[in-house]
Amino acid sequence: MSAAAAGASLKLRRLGIDTYREPIVFLHADSSVCRAEGFRALSRVRLHCGSRDLIATLNVVHGGLLACDEAGLSESAWKALGAHDGDIGMMSHPPALESFSAIRSKIYGTRFDDEAMHRCIRDISAGRYSSVELAAFLTICAGNRMDMGETLALTRSMVDAGTRLQWTQHPVADKHSVGGLAGNRTTPIVVAIVAACGLTIPKTSSRAITSPAGTADTMEVLAPVELTLEHMRRVVDSEGGCIVWGGSMALSPADDILIQVERPLDFDSDAQLAASVLSKKVAAGSTHLLIDIPVGPTAKLRSAAAAQALADRLGAVGEALGLTVRSVQTDGSQPIGRGIGPVLEALDVVAVLQRQASAPPELRARATQLAGALLEMTGRADAGQGLGMAEATLESGSAWRKFQAICEIQGGMREPRLAPHRRELPSSIAGTVCGIDNRRLGRIAKLAGAPLSPAAGLVLEARLGQKVESGQPLLTIHAQSPGELEYAWAYASGHPQIVCVAPA
Amino acid sequence: MSAAAAGASLKLRRLGIDTYREPIVFLHADSSVCRAEGFRALSRVRLHCGSRDLIATLNVVHGGLLACDEAGLSESAWKALGAHDGDIGMMSHPPALESFSAIRSKIYGTRFDDEAMHRCIRDISAGRYSSVELAAFLTICAGNRMDMGETLALTRSMVDAGTRLQWTQHPVADKHSVGGLAGNRTTPIVVAIVAACGLTIPKTSSRAITSPAGTADTMEVLAPVELTLEHMRRVVDSEGGCIVWGGSMALSPADDILIQVERPLDFDSDAQLAASVLSKKVAAGSTHLLIDIPVGPTAKLRSAAAAQALADRLGAVGEALGLTVRSVQTDGSQPIGRGIGPVLEALDVVAVLQRQASAPPELRARATQLAGALLEMTGRADAGQGLGMAEATLESGSAWRKFQAICEIQGGMREPRLAPHRRELPSSIAGTVCGIDNRRLGRIAKLAGAPLSPAAGLVLEARLGQKVESGQPLLTIHAQSPGELEYAWAYASGHPQIVCVAPA
Repeated sequence: MSAAAAGASLKLRRLGIDTYREPIVFLHADSSVCRAEGFRALSRVRLHCGSRDLIATLNVVHGGLLACDEAGLSESAWKALGAHDGDIGMMSHPPALESFSAIRSKIYGTRFDDEAMHRCIRDISAGRYSSVELAAFLTICAGNRMDMGETLALTRSMVDAGTRLQWTQHPVADKHSVGGLAGNRTTPIVVAIVAACGLTIPKTSSRAITSPAGTADTMEVLAPVELTLEHMRRVVDSEGGCIVWGGSMALSPADDILIQVERPLDFDSDAQLAASVLSKKVAAGSTHLLIDIPVGPTAKLRSAAAAQALADRLGAVGEALGLTVRSVQTDGSQPIGRGIGPVLEALDVVAVLQRQASAPPELRARATQLAGALLEMTGRADAGQGLGMAEATLESGSAWRKFQAICEIQGGMREPRLAPHRRELPSSIAGTVCGIDNRRLGRIAKLAGAPLSPAAGLVLEARLGQKVESGQPLLTIHAQSPGELEYAWAYASGHPQIVCVAPA
Repeated sequence: MSAAAAGASLKLRRLGIDTYREPIVFLHADSSVCRAEGFRALSRVRLHCGSRDLIATLNVVHGGLLACDEAGLSESAWKALGAHDGDIGMMSHPPALESFSAIRSKIYGTRFDDEAMHRCIRDISAGRYSSVELAAFLTICAGNRMDMGETLALTRSMVDAGTRLQWTQHPVADKHSVGGLAGNRTTPIVVAIVAACGLTIPKTSSRAITSPAGTADTMEVLAPVELTLEHMRRVVDSEGGCIVWGGSMALSPADDILIQVERPLDFDSDAQLAASVLSKKVAAGSTHLLIDIPVGPTAKLRSAAAAQALADRLGAVGEALGLTVRSVQTDGSQPIGRGIGPVLEALDVVAVLQRQASAPPELRARATQLAGALLEMTGRADAGQGLGMAEATLESGSAWRKFQAICEIQGGMREPRLAPHRRELPSSIAGTVCGIDNRRLGRIAKLAGAPLSPAAGLVLEARLGQKVESGQPLLTIHAQSPGELEYAWAYASGHPQIVCVAPA
């Protein structure tokens, strides 16, 4: 290749612009590289610095923001390149994105073969796809357009593109909840119970994507979750279980990238969902996976049939990958715990583990149900004995001691602190709670500042079927600032159907 | 709603960042509006200033680029808002994009009804869709997923969203080529011939989308094409025809917006294609439309059956909209003219019109064929007499005089100038040219800098079936800079199948 094709050198500059995950590079319109290489706004460019390489989208700058010999980098570009101010980067045209032709063919009705899928996911993992290319991929995979072979190829490709953990222990248990249900924070309790029963469960969890809290966000209130792989191994070798953030493990980098576009589009497909869940579990070295699928009118799965179809697909793909998968459909008609938001959910978790009288009984019941199923499917408990074993482990205090031990070795247990600003939303009438909108409850918690402010969120003060008096609180909003409190409260009081009360 | 929900005021600042068509607003991470409203990177925001309103995507800024009470605007956001430095804007959450739910439903198999399509296109025209939402829409419309009713609804919605021209003349002729064939630059010749024969043909053309040159790009080499509507009317009233850029007419603003995403995705659907073509023709006031559909292994249409299906769809949708449509399938196995790129194609056009001995005979034949068909379908020529009339008009020099007159009144005829850097690609063996890859020829021309550098591109030096010696040039690349020349040449020499020579 010629010198021009090899690239033009530019001084790298951190602009501090957060474009979420899509890396953006800014060049001055009058820079020689813009002119020589024919770059213009939205051109895809390749930037090389030291041993690292990055494909990014170009924005062209007029005026004084940048000098002509500088390349400005968005935060994600800066991090991906591991750059330092004043570093010199080489910019050039990226290689043609050959793998996208398989997506074009899929749009026109040709199914993905294994090799084509592999190439797509490899390029996606390497950050070579732009947001609109990712959106096309996600769209054409949605709506039942992926058969079992394609789903399997997608999942395998995602595993192959990331790190894969190996464990000497066997079996290696795991659990996953399909989500969409606020306050369904069973994982820390389940891990504590089954680890206390001697099962190995190296749990990697995610942070919130569209929800007010992910398991990793909630756990972080109680202990550090950003562990190195070596540190995670020490926790698991010592205690049998851990609850850490999976993002730092790069278990399925393609999934982490696809999520950035799934979020604004607000749809995902059975195939993407199966691949997203299973690729991370296979990569994490799990052998036995229990999946909690809450079903309800405002949960992610809205009918038993849809939940069963997803369970079947997860089971079949899992089996093909050597993973034993069992799914349980659970009641998704209302939140499980009372708190929604990292701190408020963590307090529910601790209340259950400490056997406090005030602990939410539904959270306790759901966690022991799931722990029992996991104990049975791994052979720790005989059929029909799992729930009893889980309940006994919780009641004896051994689950709470196990949880404290895990927190200590993850870096030390922390004390959750409530937010300073709170306001109740009272019922305007006397009557019976007849409906709870999970999605909009999540929205209130996010408007209050969760998960960025861990103590923000809400506490649900009434459950379905409960009688309430006029003026009795339906929920209490917690926020770090008065502005956020008011904003969340205005939204909640403007949508009385979120917690719907039928007149007595 | 509370004051917070109604919006927060910010000083507007032009950042000079060109993000192409997607409007971006930049806010400081510590700004009170970011915190109070829960905005984060990629949030969709609404910005209001004076009487104008804008939906944009948010980028969050850390550090000193912006003050906390400022909102930075990308160039497209700045223009859409018609802002001035120091103006105060109000920022708030945008209304929910209700029309996108029809796209989600389409992904899951529900067809668009007229009303849903109308709402989608209205929101798209108003700039309310982000790039990833547009990509999802385009993807799910592609691959034969739109029936006739949906295509008609799409086309009608696009017409309704834009300006509609009215002409007192009748009939009003138009032509369109489905594209995908490099160097198929018949339009200026056809317009000159039929206008010289007395037909009214107010031709609006597009700039390049995925190709190295659009008709408007090529015509701009010879005369101004960015005319006001009044100026265009003067040209047509005086000369019967014009060749102008349609983009400034806002004939189909939704189409103009969709194209920004079609371009990087590099695919379009029969339905989008029909709607894109016909909405602009209906909006331009045409009554008779001739469509050239080149068919060949590397053209946009690859089989006679696919071309016929498209022709049928165009005919049926056109008829439902009161437009007489006739399609002709033409040979798309290789480029028509020799040049690819605005200047090199313009030189071919002029050579044909001037009856130069060196003019590409295929371009001359194709242009007279199409002009003849248009003369017949509008009743200017009797059946079977069109081609003869077109040839006579060209041979007499009256088409060339008409073309010069059109150029003069459009603003003055210009002299095309060749690019300073050229390099031949020689055949490595002696033999016969057995295949030409139109798509990759286009890619070479784009890598050389077309259409941004109008003189960049390539000249094809050999045609299918032609015998070549070893070392004889197959094509010559033209570029404005040595870097672009080398880059295009490296690609061309690395892909010897682009002009494939079978050994003698």
